[in-house]
Amino acid sequence: MKVGYFQFNPKFLDIDHNLNKIEDMISGSDTELLVLPEFFNSGYAFNSIDEVKSAAESIPNGRTTDFLINIAKKENMYITAGLPETDNDQYYNSSVLVGPKGYIGKYRKVHLFYKEKLFFKRGNLGYPIFNIEDVKVGMLICFDWFFPEAMRALALNGAQIILHPTNLVMSYYQEASKVRALENRVFIVLSNRFGDEGDYHFTGRSQIVDPQGKILINSGENIEEIRSIEIDPKLACNKKLNEFNDLFMDI
Amino acid sequence: MKVGYFQFNPKFLDIDHNLNKIEDMISGSDTELLVLPEFFNSGYAFNSIDEVKSAAESIPNGRTTDFLINIAKKENMYITAGLPETDNDQYYNSSVLVGPKGYIGKYRKVHLFYKEKLFFKRGNLGYPIFNIEDVKVGMLICFDWFFPEAMRALALNGAQIILHPTNLVMSYYQEASKVRALENRVFIVLSNRFGDEGDYHFTGRSQIVDPQGKILINSGENIEEIRSIEIDPKLACNKKLNEFNDLFMDI
Repeated sequence: MKVGYFQFNPKFLDIDHNLNKIEDMISGSDTELLVLPEFFNSGYAFNSIDEVKSAAESIPNGRTTDFLINIAKKENMYITAGLPETDNDQYYNSSVLVGPKGYIGKYRKVHLFYKEKLFFKRGNLGYPIFNIEDVKVGMLICFDWFFPEAMRALALNGAQIILHPTNLVMSYYQEASKVRALENRVFIVLSNRFGDEGDYHFTGRSQIVDPQGKILINSGENIEEIRSIEIDPKLACNKKLNEFNDLFMDI
Repeated sequence: MKVGYFQFNPKFLDIDHNLNKIEDMISGSDTELLVLPEFFNSGYAFNSIDEVKSAAESIPNGRTTDFLINIAKKENMYITAGLPETDNDQYYNSSVLVGPKGYIGKYRKVHLFYKEKLFFKRGNLGYPIFNIEDVKVGMLICFDWFFPEAMRALALNGAQIILHPTNLVMSYYQEASKVRALENRVFIVLSNRFGDEGDYHFTGRSQIVDPQGKILINSGENIEEIRSIEIDPKLACNKKLNEFNDLFMDI
């Protein structure tokens, strides 16, 4: 399975621009499973609830999800992407998973970072697992990485690949991802944005990590690029460290 | 509080030698809380249950624990050290905590590594917390680090300092310790051995890490040394990352 990420610098509250950018970049890609950053369609640095309102959409049946489904059908790929969601007058920092057959599922960020708490509700959907053909995947969003319980919950439920849209302002995770992958024996696709917005500097360095904690590919801090690599998701089903230790039987 | 470790190369099954070594090295130290490696008194590479039997002791009321208590009284310090324990014809990979007033408590390694499973029982005492004056500490042993639940349990129960005797043959933890300290906002005193024994090569690089994930002091891979540093354990009580995020309230 060819998995990849697109690292770019979204324009704040310019959804037209951001969606067009994605469409241009993805066109003709042979990536089978692509991860876009957190809030890829809206940018990050919301200053008011009105700004959030102006960008948030329903998932499914919102403009951005429909747009992603169209690309997924056209390019015959699966896409995970972060976007602000509205539901019953509440707002969530969410990610969506779509594929060639349409909408598959969504995740709502549990661990809100910093001023996100001013505008967004804590995720209330748990850590759901989705199937991409015969591969089990789960989503996390950015700061969720800091809490080992989050990826552990996904891995214990069978996730082989962690699809992880981020807007990282700290740069711990680009090192710590190796530990998260290793302790759970999963693949991680970390799709970060780069650039500056408001008071925030985003740290790029998107990467794909294997179940041994090895960084397979990664990007620089300030570069726009789409990268992908062939992986064997079945490797994530093997939790054995040696003939005596199985990391999940030993917990 | 001045905390430290002693990194050395124990002689296999030569308890006299190993205890004498410790006594010599500690004499006159101003360390208040010292951590010795896993199986510091016996060495690691047991080949038979008879070898384990010949080295295992009661905790408390065993030769090594009594020896450590005498040093702790003489030097007015607290000591944590790993040793093979026997209890009711079972064997445990244990650590003991003693101080100037005598025996304080013990921990039995939960996550047995590799061939330890041939001879030792999985720890059955949970992850207990002990008080050193007004500071709460907990113990882990070596491979326990791989499982985030172990240190999390100690930290959630208030441990400010993780006393961590090891015999690391892999060298992941010397990097991953930063993540464990950071995610739990605790100090870690990682006391590893060095040298070769049987098929095992031990990786040294003992270290003390602060709650921000910063390595305060560390040692090389093949060096015998006692190192210590002054820390403020109260820093581990602050789980706030910023004005909106408290790492333990956010879990």
